[in-house]
Amino acid sequence: MRLVRFIHPTIPGPHSGTVVGDTVRSNGDEFPLAAVRLVPPCVPTKIICLGRNYAAHARELGNEIPTCPLLFFKPPSAVIGPEDEIVMPDSPRIDYEAELGVVIGTRCRNVRPEDARAVILGYTCINDVTDRAAQKWDKNWVRAKGFDTSAPLGPMIVTADELDGPFHVMSRVNGELRQDGTTADFIFSIPTVIAEITSRITLEPGDVIATGTPPGVGPLHHGDVVEVEIAGIGVLKNRVR
Amino acid sequence: MRLVRFIHPTIPGPHSGTVVGDTVRSNGDEFPLAAVRLVPPCVPTKIICLGRNYAAHARELGNEIPTCPLLFFKPPSAVIGPEDEIVMPDSPRIDYEAELGVVIGTRCRNVRPEDARAVILGYTCINDVTDRAAQKWDKNWVRAKGFDTSAPLGPMIVTADELDGPFHVMSRVNGELRQDGTTADFIFSIPTVIAEITSRITLEPGDVIATGTPPGVGPLHHGDVVEVEIAGIGVLKNRVR
Repeated sequence: MRLVRFIHPTIPGPHSGTVVGDTVRSNGDEFPLAAVRLVPPCVPTKIICLGRNYAAHARELGNEIPTCPLLFFKPPSAVIGPEDEIVMPDSPRIDYEAELGVVIGTRCRNVRPEDARAVILGYTCINDVTDRAAQKWDKNWVRAKGFDTSAPLGPMIVTADELDGPFHVMSRVNGELRQDGTTADFIFSIPTVIAEITSRITLEPGDVIATGTPPGVGPLHHGDVVEVEIAGIGVLKNRVR
Repeated sequence: MRLVRFIHPTIPGPHSGTVVGDTVRSNGDEFPLAAVRLVPPCVPTKIICLGRNYAAHARELGNEIPTCPLLFFKPPSAVIGPEDEIVMPDSPRIDYEAELGVVIGTRCRNVRPEDARAVILGYTCINDVTDRAAQKWDKNWVRAKGFDTSAPLGPMIVTADELDGPFHVMSRVNGELRQDGTTADFIFSIPTVIAEITSRITLEPGDVIATGTPPGVGPLHHGDVVEVEIAGIGVLKNRVR
């Protein structure tokens, strides 16, 4: 299934729905996909992100290959949907980072790698928008990676029964291909990461794990349109200002 | 006002109430304080914490005095209430850290220092329970400071109209005084910190800012009872296992 959350003028509040062809179905109603406004496809209580999970990206920033998953948080306030704008904070360099987002389906703790698949609702696109300049002095990356609009999410969640992986992760800026990677190059697999996180931290339904970015990161500028595409999921497209 | 959230056997779900003397008032009902179970006094969407905000604590851990606020996140899943147990993860050293918690009352962004007081609902006690061993290798402190039960909160919020500060912050382990500091020694004031955070991040009602810990941190052991006391607010007391 292809899960979305959306707003339509005829019904109040964001609703959950499923996308079938060009329509969104929700509670017996059906809307043209083009007539709804998509909002973030889930409501995470937290986003846990991996840094340097592709060896080639670690190398492009001059970092060592980690021997255990490098983790950081983005807060819920950073999340925007597929029709929202990325608002850059004042900084000499704000970068896109295309990533596969793993959406959790069930409250879980102490998940063994072999059981990890069962706690995954599905997969979506996430852009780990980063203040590359602040990252140098901001010890825990709260300002570098936690600012408002730094977590575009969507456009939809494809449930885990329909898609497996490895995933083909791309980004484009103003239509030009910038990143073109595969999650087959992960240093740490999704089950390993879920086991590592849940050895200490309870995950809730809707929580998102951002699995790191392939090489090719680069700066955004006012007026750019940045896309994160994952084959089989869709295109997450946001304007930058 | 002294605000709590509580559970009472006769009414379902956690309720909000105010403490007056030995009773809790809620929606026209009144319960003896001793007959309710206190839960965390607010429901934060995020907790933003300061590291090294007392010069003497930075020195005791051999760290430099920061020139801009050192920030990190704790996720909502880390929060426990004043009657819950701290469950230590497997580690050679888990420390208590007594802190003043500032509870946000209104959604805000780009707050100027001179306007910061208006966005504060009130003050509570928070224990920034820390895996001191993991802190050495865990780059962004997700595992070192984000584990389940690492954010005991409570027992109540005293609203900002009743209390001003500076605050007297203490901790005790098994009744023995371990920390005894004053927020007069803050390196960064509360208005400065609120301005710094909200220059990039929207704060939501119920969000908590943990303002850093005075010197005297130390290890916890199975069976310990750890107390965070702030004069005028109360005692946050949790058993450790």
